[in-house]
Amino acid sequence: MLAERPAVAIIMGSQSDWETMKNAADTLEALDIGYEARIISAHRTPDRLVSFAKGARDEGFQVIIAGAGGAAHLPGMTASMTALPVFGVPVQSKTLSGQDSLLSIVQMPAGIPVGTLAIGRAGAVNAALLAAAVLALHDEEIADRLDEWRARQSASVADYPIDEAP
Amino acid sequence: MLAERPAVAIIMGSQSDWETMKNAADTLEALDIGYEARIISAHRTPDRLVSFAKGARDEGFQVIIAGAGGAAHLPGMTASMTALPVFGVPVQSKTLSGQDSLLSIVQMPAGIPVGTLAIGRAGAVNAALLAAAVLALHDEEIADRLDEWRARQSASVADYPIDEAP
Amino acid sequence: MLAERPAVAIIMGSQSDWETMKNAADTLEALDIGYEARIISAHRTPDRLVSFAKGARDEGFQVIIAGAGGAAHLPGMTASMTALPVFGVPVQSKTLSGQDSLLSIVQMPAGIPVGTLAIGRAGAVNAALLAAAVLALHDEEIADRLDEWRARQSASVADYPIDEAP
Amino acid sequence: MLAERPAVAIIMGSQSDWETMKNAADTLEALDIGYEARIISAHRTPDRLVSFAKGARDEGFQVIIAGAGGAAHLPGMTASMTALPVFGVPVQSKTLSGQDSLLSIVQMPAGIPVGTLAIGRAGAVNAALLAAAVLALHDEEIADRLDEWRARQSASVADYPIDEAP
Amino acid sequence: MLAERPAVAIIMGSQSDWETMKNAADTLEALDIGYEARIISAHRTPDRLVSFAKGARDEGFQVIIAGAGGAAHLPGMTASMTALPVFGVPVQSKTLSGQDSLLSIVQMPAGIPVGTLAIGRAGAVNAALLAAAVLALHDEEIADRLDEWRARQSASVADYPIDEAP
Amino acid sequence: MLAERPAVAIIMGSQSDWETMKNAADTLEALDIGYEARIISAHRTPDRLVSFAKGARDEGFQVIIAGAGGAAHLPGMTASMTALPVFGVPVQSKTLSGQDSLLSIVQMPAGIPVGTLAIGRAGAVNAALLAAAVLALHDEEIADRLDEWRARQSASVADYPIDEAP
Amino acid sequence: MLAERPAVAIIMGSQSDWETMKNAADTLEALDIGYEARIISAHRTPDRLVSFAKGARDEGFQVIIAGAGGAAHLPGMTASMTALPVFGVPVQSKTLSGQDSLLSIVQMPAGIPVGTLAIGRAGAVNAALLAAAVLALHDEEIADRLDEWRARQSASVADYPIDEAP
Amino acid sequence: MLAERPAVAIIMGSQSDWETMKNAADTLEALDIGYEARIISAHRTPDRLVSFAKGARDEGFQVIIAGAGGAAHLPGMTASMTALPVFGVPVQSKTLSGQDSLLSIVQMPAGIPVGTLAIGRAGAVNAALLAAAVLALHDEEIADRLDEWRARQSASVADYPIDEAP
Repeated sequence: MLAERPAVAIIMGSQSDWETMKNAADTLEALDIGYEARIISAHRTPDRLVSFAKGARDEGFQVIIAGAGGAAHLPGMTASMTALPVFGVPVQSKTLSGQDSLLSIVQMPAGIPVGTLAIGRAGAVNAALLAAAVLALHDEEIADRLDEWRARQSASVADYPIDEAP
Repeated sequence: MLAERPAVAIIMGSQSDWETMKNAADTLEALDIGYEARIISAHRTPDRLVSFAKGARDEGFQVIIAGAGGAAHLPGMTASMTALPVFGVPVQSKTLSGQDSLLSIVQMPAGIPVGTLAIGRAGAVNAALLAAAVLALHDEEIADRLDEWRARQSASVADYPIDEAP
Repeated sequence: MLAERPAVAIIMGSQSDWETMKNAADTLEALDIGYEARIISAHRTPDRLVSFAKGARDEGFQVIIAGAGGAAHLPGMTASMTALPVFGVPVQSKTLSGQDSLLSIVQMPAGIPVGTLAIGRAGAVNAALLAAAVLALHDEEIADRLDEWRARQSASVADYPIDEAP
Repeated sequence: MLAERPAVAIIMGSQSDWETMKNAADTLEALDIGYEARIISAHRTPDRLVSFAKGARDEGFQVIIAGAGGAAHLPGMTASMTALPVFGVPVQSKTLSGQDSLLSIVQMPAGIPVGTLAIGRAGAVNAALLAAAVLALHDEEIADRLDEWRARQSASVADYPIDEAP
Repeated sequence: MLAERPAVAIIMGSQSDWETMKNAADTLEALDIGYEARIISAHRTPDRLVSFAKGARDEGFQVIIAGAGGAAHLPGMTASMTALPVFGVPVQSKTLSGQDSLLSIVQMPAGIPVGTLAIGRAGAVNAALLAAAVLALHDEEIADRLDEWRARQSASVADYPIDEAP
Repeated sequence: MLAERPAVAIIMGSQSDWETMKNAADTLEALDIGYEARIISAHRTPDRLVSFAKGARDEGFQVIIAGAGGAAHLPGMTASMTALPVFGVPVQSKTLSGQDSLLSIVQMPAGIPVGTLAIGRAGAVNAALLAAAVLALHDEEIADRLDEWRARQSASVADYPIDEAP
Repeated sequence: MLAERPAVAIIMGSQSDWETMKNAADTLEALDIGYEARIISAHRTPDRLVSFAKGARDEGFQVIIAGAGGAAHLPGMTASMTALPVFGVPVQSKTLSGQDSLLSIVQMPAGIPVGTLAIGRAGAVNAALLAAAVLALHDEEIADRLDEWRARQSASVADYPIDEAP
Repeated sequence: MLAERPAVAIIMGSQSDWETMKNAADTLEALDIGYEARIISAHRTPDRLVSFAKGARDEGFQVIIAGAGGAAHLPGMTASMTALPVFGVPVQSKTLSGQDSLLSIVQMPAGIPVGTLAIGRAGAVNAALLAAAVLALHDEEIADRLDEWRARQSASVADYPIDEAP
């Protein structure tokens, strides 16, 4: 049944990116938004990439979250083959701390957009929140849950800092 | 009449950003998507920022495109006060070529997302295309126009490079 | 009684910034200058930010020290809503070592100044010393204590390096 | 007469920095705040530097604005020899666009603070505004003029961008 | 006739890259090595990319030179779909001077190599020379011509610098 | 017997580079391609460098893989004295994470090419794969083994990420 | 007796720099060259700096090695007050890995030179070797010892890498 | 006659570096110090490099100034083959503004020192001044001329900035 198709695809270049991208999954779960997580390597499995990207709309996905590190081509190449909104998460790379990942994802040429989030965990969380914001435009329940999530977040900020036990 | 409200707000920190952000406006026009462009300086008009960001959903906007340069706080601060999707465009700065703009926009902490596009003109065009992709999820006509736009773009790429007249 | 209001507000984006900003607090204490430390997240608690910044002068604060990391908007947004001097401390970020924090704070556009200090602990100490220098302009006792602090600092520099026990 | 001593010293490493630092002077003039501008090269006139920095408080200066480029040592060395607040302006350098100037000024070790502003013109304007904010703490007239300046600035931001004549 | 197939494919992301990549073509011509130049945009013509990359070996190409700028995905994606040696040329980008192009091309993950040359014109010339060096391993005539080219290059370096007419 | 000469030379600036360059050796072994690994310091053993580079072709090497860190001159200087293809591996440096190694290797002037791979381990693996791709042009067995290696690599990419045991 | 005055002064900004600068001392000792190591903080002990730099020639020093980190002003300020050759060592800083130290030392304006070495330990060793090279110009014994040191260094480079015990 | 041999060699990678390196020559002339300028390309004329570097001491040179851009290997390779002091000038490169030149020259490994000056013109002037400082250690006349040069430089710094005619 179409209504049960997960709305969000979370794709990543390798198993090692899951440690970062799991934060996107956890955030979507906290918002009760369906997702499916897959490993798709732009470089090692280009056929899988083509077939996923071209078929994503028909599979029922509405938003794609793509995380990759180094010369990160997954988000941009996915965006080149689907008209769905693609949000990119630069995974922190070992040698250059994700500066290469960030530039490889965000500096797309005019014509094919990738909405890029912060390097690492913060970016993965925010990709999920941005996906939720998009879905909320036409889903009152998600909109309400997102508003609540944001309100809880604001309320959870303490007024004063405290010394932490050493 | 609500249906006539433009779906996209294009905001920018100053008149000087218009040269860049106009590319977002032009792209939306090419896709026949309504927009409204405003100058809102996070630093020089903080009240205008608060009142815009808090009221954007009620004004009927569905997507916000925010462009700013240097210590670019407009996209992130807008996102902090609305649940609408916010897409940020780092305007090329004079001294650091937009590296400061990019980091100030993309490196948002977990909790408040800004989908960031490329520095400068390419980013402005792509912010419009990303907004279109979001709107297309629930608007078949926009979806069709976006597909056509993308198809035309692909078709317009020549097969062979040519020497340009000097 | 107004005279007892702390002269310096130390604000920071989150509890995790306290480890850095505590150095500002400790330095103010060493100079016997009153302060109050609060958590104000530009992104997660924008209302708290607006209300603090607009009311800071009436609360009796004379100098504001603001620390934040990543896309650090707290110092600049505070400065946009108060005429008090604002000194910014770029907190060392996980992925980019505070380069993003530094550029997000220091590259303010003409019109709204933030006096920016070094990334991390050194910046927090120095923000306190700079606040003291400002207060010392009209407070002889602080001026004397600051002079003594600086003299002690100079005197504490050994003439020769020594091998440290391994 | 002491009351007529200019409150702000604007110092710079060379005549070529004046193009940038003049913006600090112009801003102070707009606020009707007295200043004196001098060339003091940390490297080519170290004696002038020592004598200026050590004597600045006795000369009646209350705030020092120091601009320099490249391996910019003037702000930090001045701060090492005076307890007055020192605000540094990184002048845009030819080869590295002021990244060297910025790091040479802002990354001061704990103990000697320099409140650093943005690279180039924006930083020079803002150094003057920050000096005004400091002086305003004990000078109602300056406070009023600064508030008016800021209000005028906010009011001058147009609501909508306009296409500029080509 | 297979022997007449050009040995080198020069591909680039857009017509605007030709100004740079023409230097590779010119160098191959100077070495009398056949080539074919094509525009293949990884982002705007992904199908063309897949079909070129998968068919390049069968078309008779032995070496692929790929130039692209910004988030440059063309060299790496080509390499993911062919076992032929791929040499990448980072085209100088407008905002970040090719630093984004360089990192997007060179920082490939283990498994799919792209031999990367310098940013811009020098890189295009050298990609051709590296292709020649590869072809020379099994083509004595190319080896001889390459040796001569290098010898002429060495001989052309003047012993003493001369003042150029102003 | 000439046929038994290893086809690939792996040279590196010091014993400490072996930890990185061993990955090139391991990859060549996996592809059953002969190699010889030597330490040649451009700076500490310039004579060894000259004699190796000038004699490499006569020794029977067909491809040279050169790894070095910091101001990495080994790949470029080797390329200046041999017409064989040289592939450079920027070893991750302690202070600048290999950014210095990368720029010192990749930014060669027009005339002397070095095909540069990624910083660190990934670059070493890929240098071997690129050498294999070059050798495969005229060695069907290597071509088959490389195709198999690549196919195995693609097949080994799991479809879904899994939570790793903590 | 003048002849016994150490030829080299090693100065550094703080005790914490000694861990790095000790490598300069050790290298000078290996070459049997006299030195004296002192802590001189440009910022915390400016008087000590002035008095050292102006008196260094009269104290009999011939070469000054100066190490500092962050906004490293010690080498440049020393050079501004002595005509002796000054060699600067950028100490690796905590937040920016010594990039700030390097730019603060090397980017001196025309007129006051500092010969800058690599960041960290390598730079400290090399500052000593460069001092030795300078002294060797008029001291045959040092010249001989330096030649021997360099010859031993070349001879100590193994021909082949070895796997290290894990 | 040996005494008439120029004391300083100025070498550079290509004719195009002369525009920068001429400033070193002009400065030496102003100090009446003999020099000889030669083009030696590490990459295009490696034999010339070896023969120059190994013979420089016997030719009577006492100091070598080496300028190069991009992957600048000339200073370091020269230093590897001579015990004379070598001072490196990073020539401003087209794409990366000399950041590549700087890192390629300054980040030498422990064992082979290059005293590195600023990028571009300032570095060339300062290389000459540093060479003069070295020669002045054993040449009273040069020492006097250098002192005078420095004194004139200090005296030439105006006390106050002046508005330049537009």
